[in-house]
Amino acid sequence: MIKKLVDKIKKTEAPIVVGLDPKFSLMPSFLLEEAIKEHGESLEAAAEAIFNFNKEIVDAVYDLIPAVKPQIAMYEQFGIPGLLAFKKTVDYCHEKGLIVIGDAKRGDIGSTSESYAIAHIGKIAVGSKTFAPFDEDFVTVNPYLGSDGVKPFIKVCNEHDKGIFVLVKTSNPSSGEFQDQKVGEKPLYEMVGEKVSEWGLDSMDGDYSNIGAVVGATYPEMGKVLRKIMPKAYILVPGYGAQGGTAKDLAPFFNEDGLGAIVNSSRGIIAAWQKEEYAKFGEKNFADASRQAVLDMKADIASVLK
Amino acid sequence: MIKKLVDKIKKTEAPIVVGLDPKFSLMPSFLLEEAIKEHGESLEAAAEAIFNFNKEIVDAVYDLIPAVKPQIAMYEQFGIPGLLAFKKTVDYCHEKGLIVIGDAKRGDIGSTSESYAIAHIGKIAVGSKTFAPFDEDFVTVNPYLGSDGVKPFIKVCNEHDKGIFVLVKTSNPSSGEFQDQKVGEKPLYEMVGEKVSEWGLDSMDGDYSNIGAVVGATYPEMGKVLRKIMPKAYILVPGYGAQGGTAKDLAPFFNEDGLGAIVNSSRGIIAAWQKEEYAKFGEKNFADASRQAVLDMKADIASVLK
Repeated sequence: MIKKLVDKIKKTEAPIVVGLDPKFSLMPSFLLEEAIKEHGESLEAAAEAIFNFNKEIVDAVYDLIPAVKPQIAMYEQFGIPGLLAFKKTVDYCHEKGLIVIGDAKRGDIGSTSESYAIAHIGKIAVGSKTFAPFDEDFVTVNPYLGSDGVKPFIKVCNEHDKGIFVLVKTSNPSSGEFQDQKVGEKPLYEMVGEKVSEWGLDSMDGDYSNIGAVVGATYPEMGKVLRKIMPKAYILVPGYGAQGGTAKDLAPFFNEDGLGAIVNSSRGIIAAWQKEEYAKFGEKNFADASRQAVLDMKADIASVLK
Repeated sequence: MIKKLVDKIKKTEAPIVVGLDPKFSLMPSFLLEEAIKEHGESLEAAAEAIFNFNKEIVDAVYDLIPAVKPQIAMYEQFGIPGLLAFKKTVDYCHEKGLIVIGDAKRGDIGSTSESYAIAHIGKIAVGSKTFAPFDEDFVTVNPYLGSDGVKPFIKVCNEHDKGIFVLVKTSNPSSGEFQDQKVGEKPLYEMVGEKVSEWGLDSMDGDYSNIGAVVGATYPEMGKVLRKIMPKAYILVPGYGAQGGTAKDLAPFFNEDGLGAIVNSSRGIIAAWQKEEYAKFGEKNFADASRQAVLDMKADIASVLK
C-alpha cells in the first residue's frame, strides 16, 4: 500500500494529506442548519452535515492530493450516525481515487489489537462471507503497549497489503512528558523509532515499508534524527500550519529525493474559508477556499524541497 | 462516579468486573447459527449473536457484580452493526443497574481527545438538543501523548461525574518494552503513575478519584509500588485468570480495607462453559457456567483479602 501512496505523491507532486476533521466550529453554519431542517435536531443531522462538508471539500481537492486523513474521533462523538458518516466518507474518498489514512490511534494487545486492525484495515468472516468493516488503507497506531500491541496490526497489513503509521513523536506541546524521557543515552521516542524500523522490515513495498511513523512538524530537530533511524519508514507529519509547523520545519522529514514524508493539514485546509486570506471565496464557496489552500500548501512545501 | 462504583463493590462484596469481549471463538456456535438464519451471513447477524451472548451472561450475573467492561474492539471489528451491538450492550447493562467501563484505550490531543471523551462519557449538542453518544460510565485512556491528551478526558469527567482508567502498566508480556524503561532512577510506568495521581487531585469523589489506573495482575510487584504512588486512584486490574494472574497476585493492588482495586476477568467468565470444570452446564447453559465462574472468582479473591 505504501508504494501506491508514493506513486500518487509522485503523480500529484503533493506530499500532502488533507485532514478531514469536521468539527462544527470549522464548518459554515448553513450546513448544519440545512441538515436540521431535514432530520431535526439529531445526531443524524450532525452526521449529514459533516458528510456534506467532507464531500464538497473532497470534490474540490481530490485531483490535487494523494490522500485524506479523517480523524475518527470527530465522527465517533456523534455516535452511530457519526460513524456511519465516517464510513461514507471513507467510501466516497475511495470512489474519488484517494488513499484513506484512518486517524484512529488504536492500540491494545494480542487478539484485541488484531480486532482493531480488522475493523480498520482488515476483513472478517461471518459464516462463509467476508466483510471489510471500515476499509481504510492505513490506520494510525499507539505503541504504548509494546510489540504485542503493534504486531497484530502488522500481521493484518501483510495479509491485506495495507499500512500503519505508529505514533513516535507527536506534535502536541506535552508530547515530551513521556516521549522525550531519556532512557539511558537516548529519548524514548528514539527507542520507539528503532522499533518501528525493526517492525517494518518484513513489510517492504517498493522502496518503503508499509509500517510508517507519526512525527510532529513542530519538532524538526527530532524529525531529522528519526528520519535517519527509520530509513524505510514513511513519516506522516501532523502539526503543519494551525499547530505552528512551517514549511522550513518540514525539510528534515524528507529524504533527498523529496520522498519519505507526507504532511497533514486539517484546519488549514478545511477551514481555510475562515481565514482572512481566503475570505474572498465566501462561506458558500468554502470548498473553493480549501482548493486554493491546498495549492498554496503545495507551493509552500515545494519551495523548501527544491 | 467512582463513589458509585465503590458503593456497588461494597454491596456486592465483589471487586470484580466482567469483561464482555464477545469473540466468536468464545461463544457457543448456535448463537451465530441462529442469527444467520434470521439475518443471513452478514455483519448484522454477527452483531445480533454477540448481543444475545452478552445479554444472557448479563442476565445470569448482574446481581453478583458491580460492573462490566465491554472491549469495544470486539464490536468495532463488525463495523457499524457491531458498534450498534456495543451501544445496545451498554444500554442493557445500565437497565440491569450495572456500571459500564468502556475499554476503548482512546487517546489523542486537545480537542480530539475531548471528542473521544464526549463520544464515550460526555454529551454533545446538536442545535438546542443534547445527546450522550455511547454513554459509558468510565472509559480507558492511553497516556502516550501526555497531559494534553489526558486532561480533556478529565474535563469531561468533571463535567458529567464520569471516570477514566489510564493505562499505566499493562498486563501483556511486552508491556515492559517501553513502560519499564528506566527514566533516571525509576521506570516510565512509575512516572505515568505519578501523573495519574496528580491528574486525579481535582476529581475526588468520596475516598477515591474519578481518575483511576490500569495495572496488570501479571505484575504484582509493580502493582504494590503503584498502589503507594497513586493512593487515591482506583486500579482496574486485567490479566487475572486466562493471562496468568492468580488471586495471590492480586493482594498488592488492594488497600487494607479491601478497596482500591477492581479485577477484570473476560474469557474466564464469558467462556467458562468451555472449561472442563464447568462442562457440566453444557453449551446451551453457557450463562449458568458464567455465573458459577463469577461465584468462584469472588471466593478466590475473598480468600486473599481476608
